[in-house]
This record gives sequence, structure tokens and C-alpha cells, in this order.
Amino acid sequence: MPTHPNPYRRDLDRNAANHAPLSPVSLVEWAADVFPDRCAAIHGPLRYSWSQMLARARRLASVLAARDIGAGDTVSVVLPNIPAMLDAHYGVPLTGAVLNTINTRLDAATIAFQLRHSGAKVLIVDREFSPAVAQALAQLDASGHEPPFVVDVDDPVYDGPGERIGTVEYEDWIAGGDPAHRYALPPDEWDAIGLNYTSGTTGDPKGVVVHHRGAYLNAVGNVLAWSLPRHPVYLWTLPLFHCNGWCFPWTLPAVAGTNVCLRRIDPTLILGMVREHRVTHYCGAPIVHSALINAPAELKAGIDWTVKAMVAGAAPPASMIEGMERMGWEVTHVYGLTEVYGPASVCVKRDEWQALDLAGRVDRNGRQGVRYQVQQGLTVVDPETMQVVPRDGETMGEVVFRGNIVMKGYLKNPKASAEAFRGGWFHTGDLGVVHPDGYVKLKDRAKDIIISGGENISSIEVEDALYKHPAVLACAVVARPDPKWGETPLAFVELKADREPASPEAAKALADELIAHCRSLLAHFKCPREVRFGVVPKTSTGKIQKHLLRAQARSAAAIG
Amino acid sequence: MPTHPNPYRRDLDRNAANHAPLSPVSLVEWAADVFPDRCAAIHGPLRYSWSQMLARARRLASVLAARDIGAGDTVSVVLPNIPAMLDAHYGVPLTGAVLNTINTRLDAATIAFQLRHSGAKVLIVDREFSPAVAQALAQLDASGHEPPFVVDVDDPVYDGPGERIGTVEYEDWIAGGDPAHRYALPPDEWDAIGLNYTSGTTGDPKGVVVHHRGAYLNAVGNVLAWSLPRHPVYLWTLPLFHCNGWCFPWTLPAVAGTNVCLRRIDPTLILGMVREHRVTHYCGAPIVHSALINAPAELKAGIDWTVKAMVAGAAPPASMIEGMERMGWEVTHVYGLTEVYGPASVCVKRDEWQALDLAGRVDRNGRQGVRYQVQQGLTVVDPETMQVVPRDGETMGEVVFRGNIVMKGYLKNPKASAEAFRGGWFHTGDLGVVHPDGYVKLKDRAKDIIISGGENISSIEVEDALYKHPAVLACAVVARPDPKWGETPLAFVELKADREPASPEAAKALADELIAHCRSLLAHFKCPREVRFGVVPKTSTGKIQKHLLRAQARSAAAIG
Repeated sequence: MPTHPNPYRRDLDRNAANHAPLSPVSLVEWAADVFPDRCAAIHGPLRYSWSQMLARARRLASVLAARDIGAGDTVSVVLPNIPAMLDAHYGVPLTGAVLNTINTRLDAATIAFQLRHSGAKVLIVDREFSPAVAQALAQLDASGHEPPFVVDVDDPVYDGPGERIGTVEYEDWIAGGDPAHRYALPPDEWDAIGLNYTSGTTGDPKGVVVHHRGAYLNAVGNVLAWSLPRHPVYLWTLPLFHCNGWCFPWTLPAVAGTNVCLRRIDPTLILGMVREHRVTHYCGAPIVHSALINAPAELKAGIDWTVKAMVAGAAPPASMIEGMERMGWEVTHVYGLTEVYGPASVCVKRDEWQALDLAGRVDRNGRQGVRYQVQQGLTVVDPETMQVVPRDGETMGEVVFRGNIVMKGYLKNPKASAEAFRGGWFHTGDLGVVHPDGYVKLKDRAKDIIISGGENISSIEVEDALYKHPAVLACAVVARPDPKWGETPLAFVELKADREPASPEAAKALADELIAHCRSLLAHFKCPREVRFGVVPKTSTGKIQKHLLRAQARSAAAIG
Repeated sequence: MPTHPNPYRRDLDRNAANHAPLSPVSLVEWAADVFPDRCAAIHGPLRYSWSQMLARARRLASVLAARDIGAGDTVSVVLPNIPAMLDAHYGVPLTGAVLNTINTRLDAATIAFQLRHSGAKVLIVDREFSPAVAQALAQLDASGHEPPFVVDVDDPVYDGPGERIGTVEYEDWIAGGDPAHRYALPPDEWDAIGLNYTSGTTGDPKGVVVHHRGAYLNAVGNVLAWSLPRHPVYLWTLPLFHCNGWCFPWTLPAVAGTNVCLRRIDPTLILGMVREHRVTHYCGAPIVHSALINAPAELKAGIDWTVKAMVAGAAPPASMIEGMERMGWEVTHVYGLTEVYGPASVCVKRDEWQALDLAGRVDRNGRQGVRYQVQQGLTVVDPETMQVVPRDGETMGEVVFRGNIVMKGYLKNPKASAEAFRGGWFHTGDLGVVHPDGYVKLKDRAKDIIISGGENISSIEVEDALYKHPAVLACAVVARPDPKWGETPLAFVELKADREPASPEAAKALADELIAHCRSLLAHFKCPREVRFGVVPKTSTGKIQKHLLRAQARSAAAIG
């Protein structure tokens, strides 16, 4: 064999000593190695150290392996932010399988879609969510699809309703596993670690596939972007089913931090935990922060340290910036999407902003900002020509990312992947501008998405549901600004001629009927809060002019 | 083509949007992007922002590219810690070429060896070091080797002796370069970025080849290991020619920090810069820290913040731990080698150590510690069987590393590479133990072990005992061949100036006193049979040259 002409590529290959595939689970190994006895997770009265967490992950991996789960397989979970959910993030990747975290608020049909599309072989479900999951399983069964092996989590911290529907209880199951199970992390860091479905604007949800390399880099990227110190105490206000909790389950072991588990968003509960466990960091949608700001002062007594928060999903409004400042807490605005592992840009604060008035600080902190250190590129382009827009804060274009914290692509959907990656960038579908200082600011969400309480709602999905009602001729669902939820869905419906209501009472009854109809098909949070009847405005070619309806919705909100 | 059976590997390939080779220079791009106006480097009266640093790097890359420098080529530098040295770290990799940083204290023959072995095409040299370099070039010339293109740095901050020996002055040269030069980072993150020769104790120096991936990960690894905050002010007390300054030139842009340049180690100068620039962090060998501790109190006046220091090269002695505490500075002990990009393990402080007495704190902080988060493995093994030693703090073995911050190998030396990587681990050649808490502690270099009557004697342990005697300034203990015992310990001792013996009788008495002193601390078989007084030979970096002493010991034995 001829020798390589470049001496730096000759006899200098990868080997077991000098190369290891990047995997975020290696950070869990580090914490278990270096801080074995330090608290990794708190859940009600339960405490787990980092060595216990790794042992739990190995137990889980061993019982999965015993069921022949490995590379190419999917393990789905419908879980709140509890230790079993952390186990899933730490243990499923040890088998080479892919973790599919399902939004706990979804309706049965969407859950069934995900289980079918991902080919889930194992499903771990918390008792609280078993009703919708049981329905989903019945739908799978009815369609002749082989059902997954179902494991129940019967969390001792939960005493609400919900039956067990599985074959075995989770703790019993992993108790039979091997805490010293031998495993091998995937040989290729490009291998998938997670599958997270997005509510696409059209058609079926798309399955975002993320890989070990990206999850590792974003886990570390969170430390760099937020200047995370050693030993943070992190409260799980952000659902772990959202982009794997923005990779924070893997960030925490990298800094030997503590996961404080939380089943539900409740200011009294949250502030009590902040005080009791001396929480230092948390993340969430604006609604979470607002709820804390608006909580009674006595709930905040004794919290005399600076709690640091990340907010995403919408720009933090003035009330939030001001409210957090009053509490002495520090909020950082981040932006991203499931396709970029959660946040991939951060509104880095500048020293000079401190001198600005409130309006100025709100303006600056409302920007989506600059790319994470571990992301290669973030810019705004003309989506047709791929030309970068000028940094004038005015010229609108599409926000695009590129780099190592961009997904592998959409599962079994090469067409959608190619579309998302056209021109060598990931297209967010969001419209924005670039300010002269290089900070990106969103101007318009991808036009069909409504963000309510941090959750994406596809207006088209809601419209599809409405169209299934026999009275509906045409309809459009748009976002209405809402002080509590950020946005809520508002439906404009044009009725078939023979279904026009004869009286205001009849109109009210029909509106209620349509909402109930939607609720029979969709998760409640996706359904319209209000239905307005009338002719839906259309272009000459028959396209519904949503921008007119959005303007109406905004002015109605301003008035109302 | 058949579809891949694993759906997560089908239609989900790397592309320009979702994959970028890791390179530490991307961190410089980030700083220039996000903090363009922030101070990147201070040198005397000079200031460079991050956008200026990237522009300088691009100028350098463009003039190198104009000389056809690219992948497979070597650019050598003989430079102190000045902006041109930072440029070299930021600009040379933009061409795809490899940066070879040469120790500024080396003799002409060793410099000539490196230039010849690396095939350097360009050589950038500071005027201060031109005498030895000129000699080296003459040696190359005499041997018929094609000389590199030589560029002089005539640093305005330097007013000492030294002629220009090159074709062009560095600032003039890059002034002709293009500050917007278009470049492409290497397509393969496994490509080499650096070549650093180790001062082998026997035979020719070995050229350690490090790559973009490892340099990126270690740059980030420093942030994780040291919990570096945003905007540190970092003083360059550590030579940048040592393992690329432990990757810190690339760590600083990742946290938008400031490089404070420094040409020479001088406590007055250093403490003045610490005060003037509000330095927060620095690294160095024990001797640097000791010099600062022993500096007059008035030089430290006004430095009322906690300066954080990393120390490597030897365990910090009691006087340093105590001295740093007295100053209110914080010292962290790290350990590594050129082959692992500088430090790859850190003696992470535990809360419970604070309660220990000085001896206890010295003992704990003297450990080499635990692996960096970005390093996959660190352990101690029996070098024959590769069995991990028990965590008993007693069983000695060889310290080994594995993972992404291990070199590609030695340049043009596959035999040495294979030897270093045998058994799937990088062999450090250092002997150590693992304590029950998992912390590694060095006991000795493999070749520094003295085997007497079948018993292993750690020369470091004997030296430690000698250092406890007030007359000892420096010492080294080596093996002397012995017909009866195999080997016996022979001590070379350099005395403090005021303790020099006045007569042969006084010398004999002092030698006896030192042996008795050792016997009061150690088992008799470990104690020196003989003590010789004199100046202990050291390398340019202050490392004691034990091989010279061993040679002396051997020839003395042959004669005697």
C-alpha cells in the first residue's frame, strides 16, 4: 500500500486509546465516577446519588436488553418529570435503542400515531396518563398493529386517579435488572438517541431524530451558554418530554448537579421546593415564570439567593422582565426548536443593557439572540435565494441554523428532511430580522403555529378537526394573544348555508358543539377557546387570508 | 440499493446543515461573532478585540496560503506569549497546516532536529531567540536540508538583544494579508492541528500530533473542569509552547475572555499586571506560584479579589497550599502530558477537605485526581496484564488514559505510537496508586523506580524526605547498580547558599546528617547509601535531568 503523502495522516489512525464516540451518557458515567455519593435526583421523599442513578440506568438497560431491545428499536415513554424519566434518558441509550418521549397531554389518536410510526417495542407510562394511553393501545389493537410491551409507573408521590394498564410495574421491573449490567455505548456517535415528534403545520407529526454527538455537544453547550457553575440545583419545571428537556438531563451530570423532580406546575409547590432544596436554576415557558412572579409574596419569603431561569417559547414580556428583577431573579431568553435539540440560540446579556430603561431592557432581552458556542451557524436568509439579509433590524427573512446541534432528519420522511435542509441550512419556518449587533429577532412565528402555555399547536390540525364537523364550510384557526397562556386558538368558521343558526342562543350552542367536537378528536389544550361565525375572507384564488383574521384576533385581544 | 434495516440509519445522513467538523477555531469565530468589540488580547500598550484577532488570523492564513501552505504542511514558531503566538494558534489551522510550537529555551541542535523532522516550511521567530535559531538554521543548511521561509517578530514590547534573521518582519508580512480571507476549516476533525515535541529522556524527541477534535473538546473541557465563568481575564504565565498552552488559547474565546500576554516570568511584572488588568485566572508550574507567594507584600497590595490558579508539573507542596491560602488565591492541581493535550485530570476539591489540617489539605490537593469530563478514562493498571489495580491507595501500577483528548500518535514513529497505545490505553510512564475515593496519586516515573533487594523504592518518596531538611534546595535520587542489592538509592543534593559546607569534613557530616534525617522518616532500605553535593542539572523548563545523574551513577558504579 502506498504511504499517504500527508505525514499527519499516516500511521496516526483512531484506536481504542485515542478515540471514543461522543455520547451524553458518558457524562453520567463521569458524575458516577467522580461524585458517586452526591445527590443526583430528589423526588418527594426519595433521594438518589449519581452512583445510584447510573445503577438504575444499568438495571433498566439490562431488562430492556433481556427483551432484545437494541440498535434500531424504540422505547416510548409517557412520563412526567420523575426519576423514571431520568432513568429513561440515562438507561435507554445504553442499549443502543432510541428514546421516544411522548407529550403527556396528547390525545389518544396522536399517541397511537407515534407508537405506530416509531414502531415502539416498549412503552413506559405513568398511571396518571393511562386513560389516553389505554385508548391509544386499543386503537393500535383495532388496526392490527402489534402492541408494545407496556410498563406502568406507579409513582408513590402521585395519589390521583389512573389505572395500571401494563404487564409490570416499573420499579418491580428494574428491581430484577442488573445494577452492574455491562453495556457498550453506540460505536457511532451519529447513531440516534432520541425521537421527538413535532406538531407539524400540515399532515402528520414529524419524528425528529437526534443523535448522541449532538446531545453530548448540546449538554455541554448549555454549560457554556448559561455559564453553569459546579453543583447547580435544577428544578424540573420544563417538561422532559420537550426536546429531552433541552438536553439538561445530560447537562446536570457534566456539572455534578441535582435534578429536582416535579410532576406539575403549581407556584406553591415550586416555591416551596425552591426554598427547601435551595434551587439555583430552572427553565420554562413564559407562563411558568409569570405564575411565580404573580404568586403571593409569603410564598417567596426566605428565598434570598439569585435563582437563574431560562425562558423560551416566546419573548419575555415587560411584566416578566420587571417581575423577575423585583424578585432578584435572573432570566435569560433562549430560542430553538425540537430540530435543534431545544435552545440553540441565546440572548446573551450585554453590560450596556443594564443602563437602559425597562422598555429598552424588554426590547433587548426579547431578542432570540446569538448562536450557542456549540452551534456552527445562525442567520436570517431570503428563503428563495439563501442570501443573508442585511443587519438592519428591518429586512425580514427566514431564520436558519446549521451545525452539530441540528437533527439527523425526520424519521421515515426523506422528503420533509430534504425540504428542511435545503441550501445547506436547517429552515426553522420562523421569520425574523438581524439587528446591527448581530442579534436575531423573530418577527412572526411560522404563520400556522400557535404557542399556548409553551406548547406548539398546529392551527391546521385544529382546522382539520373542525372540517370533520358536518356544519363547517370553511374555517381558519389563528392565535389570539392571551395574558396567561401567551396565545390561545381562536376559530373563525363559515357555516354551510343550511346550518346557519337562527338565533344568538343557537349560535352559542353550535359554537359549544364545535368545541366539544374538537375535544373529541384533539388534546384539550389544542382546541379553540372561542368560535366566531361569519364569512372567512379569501383571496381571488380561494386561499384563506389568515393575516386579516390574525389582525382581527389581535385587535379583539387588545380591546378585550 | 437495499434499505437499511435500522430505520434510524436510513435517509438520515450527515449534510452541510447538520454536521460540522469540530475545530477549536470555531470558538474564535464565535467570539468574533458574538463579542466582536470585546478585548481579546492585551500586550503592553496594545489591545486587540475578538474581531481584530480573527482578522489577524485571516491575514496570517492568507499570507501562508499565498506561500502554498496547506494540509500536510508544518509551520514552526519560536515565540514567547505574545499576540503573534495567539495568531499562530488561530490562523495556522485556518490553512489546514499544522502548528509546531518550539520551546524557546531549546538549544540549536534540538531546534534543528524539530525543523528537519517536521519538515517545517515556514518558521516564525521572535528576535529574542534568534541566536539559537540562526545556529539551528546554519546546521540545517550544512546538512543540505531545504530551509524554511523565516519570518521575524520584532515585538515593540521587547527591547533586548537579538538580530533579525528572516526575510520579512511579521507585522509587515501579515499587513499585506487579507483580513477577510476566505478559508475552510479542515473537512475532517481528525486532521492534525498541532505538533509538540516532548523532551524524551532518551533518544530523539518524539513529535506528538494532536487533532482539531481533541483540541476543541479540551478547550471546552477546561471550562467544565475549572468552572470558568464568562469573561475571565487570563494571564499567560504558562508558556504557550507547552501543549499549546493546555488548549487555553481556544478556551478563552469560548467564554469571551481576555488573553493577557507576558514575555517573561517576573513577580513584579506579573503582580503589576494582575492588579492593572484585574486578572482572574492563570496557570503554571509550582515555581511560578512560589515566586508570587514569596514576592514582597507591597507588590500584592490592592489585589483584593480571588485569583484562581491551576498548577501542574508537580504536586503543590505545603508551602504553596498555605501561601496561596494566605493570599486568598485558589489553586487547583491538574495533571497531564503533551500526549493528552496538557491537563486531562484534575484534583477536584471536595467540600469535606476544608475541615482538614494543612497536612491533610496538602495530601488531598497533591493528588493528580480524576479525569476531565471530556476524557473517557483514567486509571492505574498493571502494565503487563492491564489489570486495574485495587483502590487501596497502595498498589502501584502505571497511570493510563483513554479517550478523545489523547493524541493521534507520534509523527513518523509508528513503533513508539503502538508502544504508547498498547492494550487500548495511552501509557503515561508514570507510576501511581488509586485511593479509595477514586483519586489517582502519582508515585513515580516508571524509570525512576529503584529496585533494591527486590523491593520497589519510589525515588519521589525519598526526595520528599530530603526536601523536608532545611539545608536542601534541590535534590534527585537515582538508582546506582549494586552487586549485592541490584540497585541502591544515590542522592544528589543542591544545598541552599548559606548551608554550603566549609570543608570535606563538614560535607561528610552533613551527608551523614541527611541520611539520618531520611532514616527518621523512611524505612532504612529506602534511604540513600550516599549523598553527593553539587548543582543538580535541569532542563530549560526547570525539570531535573535525572538521566544525566543516572548516567553518572552508572559510571561511578563501573569505576567504583
